[in-house]
Amino acid sequence: MQIRDIGEQGLLERLQRFCPPEIIGDDAAVLVTKPGKSLVVTTDVLVDGVHFSEITTSAVDAGWRAAAANLSDLAAMGASPLGITVGLGLRGEVSVNWVEELYQGITQCLQKYNTSIVGGDVVRSPVTTLSITAFGQAHPHQIIRRNQAKVGDAIVVTGVHGASHAGLELLLHPELRHNLTQGDYTALIRAHQRPQPRLDVLPILWSILSSPIPQGQENHPPIPPSPHPPLSPLLPVAGMDSSDGLADAVLQICRASGVGAVLESTQIPLPDAFNYWLTKEKALLYALYGGEDFELVLCLPSLPADELVQQLGNGAAIVGTITSDSKVLLHDQNAKKTDQVLTLGRGFQHFGQ
Amino acid sequence: MQIRDIGEQGLLERLQRFCPPEIIGDDAAVLVTKPGKSLVVTTDVLVDGVHFSEITTSAVDAGWRAAAANLSDLAAMGASPLGITVGLGLRGEVSVNWVEELYQGITQCLQKYNTSIVGGDVVRSPVTTLSITAFGQAHPHQIIRRNQAKVGDAIVVTGVHGASHAGLELLLHPELRHNLTQGDYTALIRAHQRPQPRLDVLPILWSILSSPIPQGQENHPPIPPSPHPPLSPLLPVAGMDSSDGLADAVLQICRASGVGAVLESTQIPLPDAFNYWLTKEKALLYALYGGEDFELVLCLPSLPADELVQQLGNGAAIVGTITSDSKVLLHDQNAKKTDQVLTLGRGFQHFGQ
Repeated sequence: MQIRDIGEQGLLERLQRFCPPEIIGDDAAVLVTKPGKSLVVTTDVLVDGVHFSEITTSAVDAGWRAAAANLSDLAAMGASPLGITVGLGLRGEVSVNWVEELYQGITQCLQKYNTSIVGGDVVRSPVTTLSITAFGQAHPHQIIRRNQAKVGDAIVVTGVHGASHAGLELLLHPELRHNLTQGDYTALIRAHQRPQPRLDVLPILWSILSSPIPQGQENHPPIPPSPHPPLSPLLPVAGMDSSDGLADAVLQICRASGVGAVLESTQIPLPDAFNYWLTKEKALLYALYGGEDFELVLCLPSLPADELVQQLGNGAAIVGTITSDSKVLLHDQNAKKTDQVLTLGRGFQHFGQ
Repeated sequence: MQIRDIGEQGLLERLQRFCPPEIIGDDAAVLVTKPGKSLVVTTDVLVDGVHFSEITTSAVDAGWRAAAANLSDLAAMGASPLGITVGLGLRGEVSVNWVEELYQGITQCLQKYNTSIVGGDVVRSPVTTLSITAFGQAHPHQIIRRNQAKVGDAIVVTGVHGASHAGLELLLHPELRHNLTQGDYTALIRAHQRPQPRLDVLPILWSILSSPIPQGQENHPPIPPSPHPPLSPLLPVAGMDSSDGLADAVLQICRASGVGAVLESTQIPLPDAFNYWLTKEKALLYALYGGEDFELVLCLPSLPADELVQQLGNGAAIVGTITSDSKVLLHDQNAKKTDQVLTLGRGFQHFGQ
């Protein structure tokens, strides 16, 4: 059964089963925010053939990944999700089953993070297009921005990098699988198909940052008193997600904060399988430039950074330090070669040139 | 100069000039809502060749219309705008100029209503696609829903209907113009290209509804005391916008409220030009089914309805009454024929069959 067989109204009735009943039937959805919280909004457009493909992505996975990417942007800002809207452009020949599976994937991901679809639009289009806008709320004092990194901050990643890109490579080139264990193969594919936005990091981070630091152990300059303390105290953390790769995240944070960084390549956490499956160079390439791992990259003083890494476990690590340099350098403590300078705008294919 | 000549980064830098500086550079935008207000969210997807066309719509007008449609949805819910996000899928061959004009149109409309673009995404796509999500805020007691129409309510339209469709017909068939005055021609074209979301109606409506009704003149049953008065008092108004036509709006409200209606065809406000330019039948066809007039269709007791129509002027009118019937009837006080039954799902082309 194709979309054109049941029409827009027929499709809407089927898709409304994926939404809370109270949102159906008005010109807009109504959400209640907690008093004193700020609204955080992010939007993504995904186009068939550009951002997803039937070769590597089932409809369920495309839905999950789209929802996860938007929830990851909320996590990167320190916000907890309120809901998402889904705008869908569909060719008439798309099967109704495909669209329902897409919505299943979206809602499976949203349910895991206690949120839901709160509105949407379905229209005819010559190319299948998925636009998601996600809303979250955050305490105004706990919004994580890119421009707050300070010299001396430790750079924390909340988990391993490179797994999502490895999964994509395995889907595109099944012959690469031959020397991978079944468990590692499945884990890498899953990392690509079912990325996990790191909303779980936030309560741990806030708990650590609100704990008093033992006397004499502060290694970060005290925050100067603000003229408007209730409005804009400085949060001692900067960050974003690693959706476009770990290198991109560190570079974006440094550019926004007017600082540099040194990354220690041996400290970048990699999937176990990379040890026997990839050369060291390729493993690092995947981790730095692969993208879509949807981990958080956070810059904060080293004491809370150590505490955060310990509490998170599962691959969380300190991978470098913020410097007063204007460059982001990649150091290798085991190699004698000079540090590599990482630059923005050099995509995956340009690495190593 | 085409999009592919300057790339995504180059385009983003140009488009950021249309956004407030504070929203640039993070994973998401941060908005502050007023304490105690609910968040209202609506989304629309527009596809080149389906929802807009270079024949009838310049880039500036396409932008204005897209923004206006979303602001109209907010007005229809009783919400004032906080901002919009713009998701744009673009072919590489689209000219940079076209995109900048699109953003000019969007921001011209937003500025008129004191709001702005607060976030977005720009991606490559084989077909130009524009996804707008608008956010507004409303007092929880002043959210206008479709399902609150009550038997005896007057049905108010906030302005003339049919002008937008007439403008579209004139753009598609320039030969229709020959017996129109220059002033009427320009006004009809403008109604199509620059629709005005009726956010201005809201303060007038709230002011009227908060005024005490003179003793003995209530013609609406008193609102029963609610067990939770601060949470859910019944608002004595139901409504939506007439983006899909006046007939559709009345039918949707009646279906959601479990009521019927009688519309008096001679009371439906039409553009002056229709008197000499269209047959009575065609004028009514445009008004009922043309769509995109973006007026509000409100159901409320007749005393405040009269007051609202008086204060609005400019074509605002009471066009009918909510009944306990299950049907929506179109009556003509000057004709002897039986009332016509209006039904949902009968588009423009099916009228009169």
